[in-house]
Amino acid sequence: MRIASFTLDGSPRWGVADGDRVLAAPASMPSLKRALREHGVDVLRQAVEPYPTTAVTLLTPVPDADKILCVGLNYLDHIAETGRETPTHPVVFARFADSLVGNHASLIAPRESVSFDFEGELAVVIGRTGRRIAAERAHNYILGYSILNDGSIRDFQKQTHQYTPGKNFDASGAFGPVIVTPDEIGELAGHRITTTLNDDVVQQSDLGQLCFDVPELIARISTWTTLRPGDVIATGTPGGIGAARDPQLWMFPGDRIEVSIDGIGTLSNPVVEDDDQIAV
Amino acid sequence: MRIASFTLDGSPRWGVADGDRVLAAPASMPSLKRALREHGVDVLRQAVEPYPTTAVTLLTPVPDADKILCVGLNYLDHIAETGRETPTHPVVFARFADSLVGNHASLIAPRESVSFDFEGELAVVIGRTGRRIAAERAHNYILGYSILNDGSIRDFQKQTHQYTPGKNFDASGAFGPVIVTPDEIGELAGHRITTTLNDDVVQQSDLGQLCFDVPELIARISTWTTLRPGDVIATGTPGGIGAARDPQLWMFPGDRIEVSIDGIGTLSNPVVEDDDQIAV
Repeated sequence: MRIASFTLDGSPRWGVADGDRVLAAPASMPSLKRALREHGVDVLRQAVEPYPTTAVTLLTPVPDADKILCVGLNYLDHIAETGRETPTHPVVFARFADSLVGNHASLIAPRESVSFDFEGELAVVIGRTGRRIAAERAHNYILGYSILNDGSIRDFQKQTHQYTPGKNFDASGAFGPVIVTPDEIGELAGHRITTTLNDDVVQQSDLGQLCFDVPELIARISTWTTLRPGDVIATGTPGGIGAARDPQLWMFPGDRIEVSIDGIGTLSNPVVEDDDQIAV
Repeated sequence: MRIASFTLDGSPRWGVADGDRVLAAPASMPSLKRALREHGVDVLRQAVEPYPTTAVTLLTPVPDADKILCVGLNYLDHIAETGRETPTHPVVFARFADSLVGNHASLIAPRESVSFDFEGELAVVIGRTGRRIAAERAHNYILGYSILNDGSIRDFQKQTHQYTPGKNFDASGAFGPVIVTPDEIGELAGHRITTTLNDDVVQQSDLGQLCFDVPELIARISTWTTLRPGDVIATGTPGGIGAARDPQLWMFPGDRIEVSIDGIGTLSNPVVEDDDQIAV
């Protein structure tokens, strides 16, 4: 099953993909996150109103996500390029939901920096509430998988030892296009993850190369925080980031950045200038 | 004005304090955060239903806060005790709302650690949406001030270079008791902040000792993220934390930790054992 959040006639809705149609949940239904929390995963069966795919504009799969937990340094080749040691615990930092846009929406290259970098990642969306989840039971808590581009403003990320500013510029990352349930994906190992910048391959790896795999991340993170439906874990990026290249490679207005994962799809976003529409 | 969120007859509500009464907003009103976003600060005038203070149980002032931005290393004495250099940029990390409890609610000493530490802080609650807010105009964006105990599990905080796990154990911090509007506080300098553990003073400073003051923090943080009503900035803790003492001083079940700020009040919380009620 492929689950999406979107706008339809200007209103936020969610539903499931069905060939060239989208089956939308009733307009009276709250957001996907809230529906899952109030009714459990069976609520997905209530997505039955058919619309042509062209009638909807994708949002991120969880537009009102409370917790977006990003893991750093989780592929061996990326650890090597940063010059850090292999961590004995996952490196975890937070993104806020408004730092992310959906598929085809514009990433904003902030005017304060030129060091706007890409990070293609596998994202896990939680489907059931749990704390202190054993790795062997972690699969019961996964709603599905998606793609996250953990776009990073490197000079702001390195202003201090905490990454928050460089990981949370408005509309600096992307999440989508949809959530694909585990039964459609099967084993993660063997699935390629590929990032392209203007059609040049800049990152490529295999989901089997994660240092901390998905069950282990769920176990470690749920040691300290209750995971709830709609929470997101971004599992880290492979090697090839722009900051580690010589010369360094940044994203600029006019570029297009795409992250693809076998069995999930492609998250494609143009980069635009910062026109300060939100400034007051 | 003193603004609070609470439960009343089991339902989440919000309102304003009025002597020994609470004036509640209508039951049909969404949360304080959502009401402010939908209607602006004038919505506070709709809190007119009187109840005795004893009829309500305080929640954190913004139970559904989207962004809780915590500033580290922002008092000179605390910087000295950590052995770090004075930062040229604010150190910013994130807490999630479910890591915090309201006044008088129990802090949970996690079973995974004994290094449970206190951090008394001034919290700023945002009242108006803004991005790239100049420090000179920052006062227009402040709804009011509150108190935050940035309770920290030190060994988890230091597992890696990112603080997230040690700052986000369920119910490891506190926020409240209420939000006090700036007109009731006046100048922050000269207001004492005091943390007591079982009636022993463990932290004491003056709000005038902040390295990055409140307008500067709003300016710096809004450079990268849009601040919206209900977002929270915790402005950092003074010296005296348990981790920097010799011998080190931790919180255990049976303790009571209190943070007081002149003109705001006292945030008081017992520490209880981790009984794993949430575990599944």
